[in-house]
Formats: sequence, structure tokens, C-alpha cells
Amino acid sequence: MDVFLAVASRREVREYLDRSLPESAVNRILEAGRVSGSSRNRQPWSFVVVDDPGVREGLADAVYVADNVRGASLVLAITVRGRGPVLFDAGRAAQNMMLVAWNEGIGSCPNGMADPDGVARLLGLEEDERPVTVLTFGYPVRPRDPARRSPEDWIARADRKPLEAVVRQLG
Amino acid sequence: MDVFLAVASRREVREYLDRSLPESAVNRILEAGRVSGSSRNRQPWSFVVVDDPGVREGLADAVYVADNVRGASLVLAITVRGRGPVLFDAGRAAQNMMLVAWNEGIGSCPNGMADPDGVARLLGLEEDERPVTVLTFGYPVRPRDPARRSPEDWIARADRKPLEAVVRQLG
Repeated sequence: MDVFLAVASRREVREYLDRSLPESAVNRILEAGRVSGSSRNRQPWSFVVVDDPGVREGLADAVYVADNVRGASLVLAITVRGRGPVLFDAGRAAQNMMLVAWNEGIGSCPNGMADPDGVARLLGLEEDERPVTVLTFGYPVRPRDPARRSPEDWIARADRKPLEAVVRQLG
Repeated sequence: MDVFLAVASRREVREYLDRSLPESAVNRILEAGRVSGSSRNRQPWSFVVVDDPGVREGLADAVYVADNVRGASLVLAITVRGRGPVLFDAGRAAQNMMLVAWNEGIGSCPNGMADPDGVARLLGLEEDERPVTVLTFGYPVRPRDPARRSPEDWIARADRKPLEAVVRQLG
């Protein structure tokens, strides 16, 4: 899929089909995170793939939308450590992963956590490591065909502030 | 360009040709930021396009690699305000913009700031607004043709930790 069409047509997906993801797709998603750029190439992230049912249920309780985690085909926590713009860099890696998933017809959603310390314990993180987000992936219950519209049309239909509200020009 | 190839082949670009960007490309870059997903759809960002030569020179002094800003065809600061995962969300928007740029053959690089308060004054930001990164865009001095290699080959040649160093499996 063309990059601009993928960026324009991607939306957060909160309900997934009960259908597993091809191993090749999971691998591409992980590689998309791994290859991401980061400040001073520090790659401050770990990607924790959660298959254990008990840990999954604990994660579901820890995020704001439990069913998004419960119903996902792939649950992946991004954790970071160290100094510098690690949250910004984690966002870059997450977006890479979610766009590459969408390229395969796979939906995704980032989940924030009410209790990051609890999630850190649940995932067995190291002392200096903290969770940033819980990404979920799966085939959407309501699929959408990106090719159905132009990128411009997808963007026009997105629930977003108008361009003049987010762009300022200096000079 | 295919999404996975774009993600795999994109690298930070620090030296740009002295060549302006088509208005259509600049518009797509801005739209890619605007349409990004964010926590609770808060869209906590502003994109400040800096054309003013004096402000540009001030920004060049404020980042770690001055020449990356001085030589850029488009200089755009991302600012955020409000609570929640605004830095993570800014990273998502930045990655959207940089991938859409790369889709047009345009290179890009995020620049951190030694003195964010100084940058806030320079850009005339509001009280509750803070700069996250200074993105630069331009045609690379050393262009690379993404189609020359497979995505897997691009990733294998990237200077990154091995997959087993960044991925953990629970269960």
C-alpha cells in the first residue's frame, strides 16, 4: 500500500476478529519497530510480546479499554529505559509498527495505562525500565478497504482539527 | 512506495540539497501530521513552520546539529500542550510526516534541543505550550533508491540492535 494512503486511511481499531496473524506479518511488525530511528540511535525500547493468558488479563485490567486487549490477536507492550526523548522515540517506533500492520490489513490501537507501576511489575520489567503503551493488533471486525477512497478523502473524513488550527507559519 | 519498504529504507538525513520542496509535498507532510492518531483524539500538537531567517538561525543555534537546520528546505517545530502521553503522540505524528516525506523522495531528521525554554521564546509559544522536536526536511545530498533493495535487506543493513535484543516473549 502507498505510504500516504496508509497514513491517511489508518484509524485506531478497538474490536478485532478472533483470527490469528500470520507469523510473517508479526515479524514485519516487530522489524518495523526495531528499524525505527531514535535519538543518538539509542534504540531505548523493548517490545514485550504477551501471550501468557494471565499476564494478558492483568494488562486488560490495567488499560482503559480492557476489551481491546482481551480481543487482540497480538498484544505488545513498548517499554523504554534511559534518558533523552525516549517517549517521543517510542511513539515513532509504535507508528512504524502500526502502519506496517495496516499495510497487511491488520488494525491496531495504543492503550494507555492507569497504573504504569503495576504494569511494570506484571511484565517483570527491570528497575530502570518503564512501560509506555500497550499496543494491540488484529483483523478489524469492521474492515475498511483503503483503496476505496483517495488519501485526501480519507483525511477529510477523519475527526480532526482543521489544518489552520494546527499549523502556524513564522515568516 | 510500499509502507514496509518505506519504513525499512528510511534513514535520518542530515545534509540536504539547496532545492525547494513542491507545495504539494509540503501539504502532504502537514496533512500526515494532522491526521495522526492520539490519545483520546486530543491532537495535542501544533506544527510551526519556520521560514523567517532570523528565527531559523536561532533554531539552528538551539539544536545539537546546527547545519541540519541551516541547510533544510523545510523547518518545522512540533509543539505540544496538555496532559497525557503528548510526547508519545508527537512521536507518532513526526513519524507519519517523515514517512510521507520519504514517500516523495524527501529526507528528514528530528532535532533535539539543548534549551527548550529558549526555543519556546524564539517561537513565541504560549505559556502552556512546549517544543518537542525540530523536524527538518529536504532532498538528500546523497540520494538512495529504496527499490534498489528488499525491505529485509535494508533492515539487515541498518545499524540496529538484533531482534533478540529488543523483543521479549511472555508466555
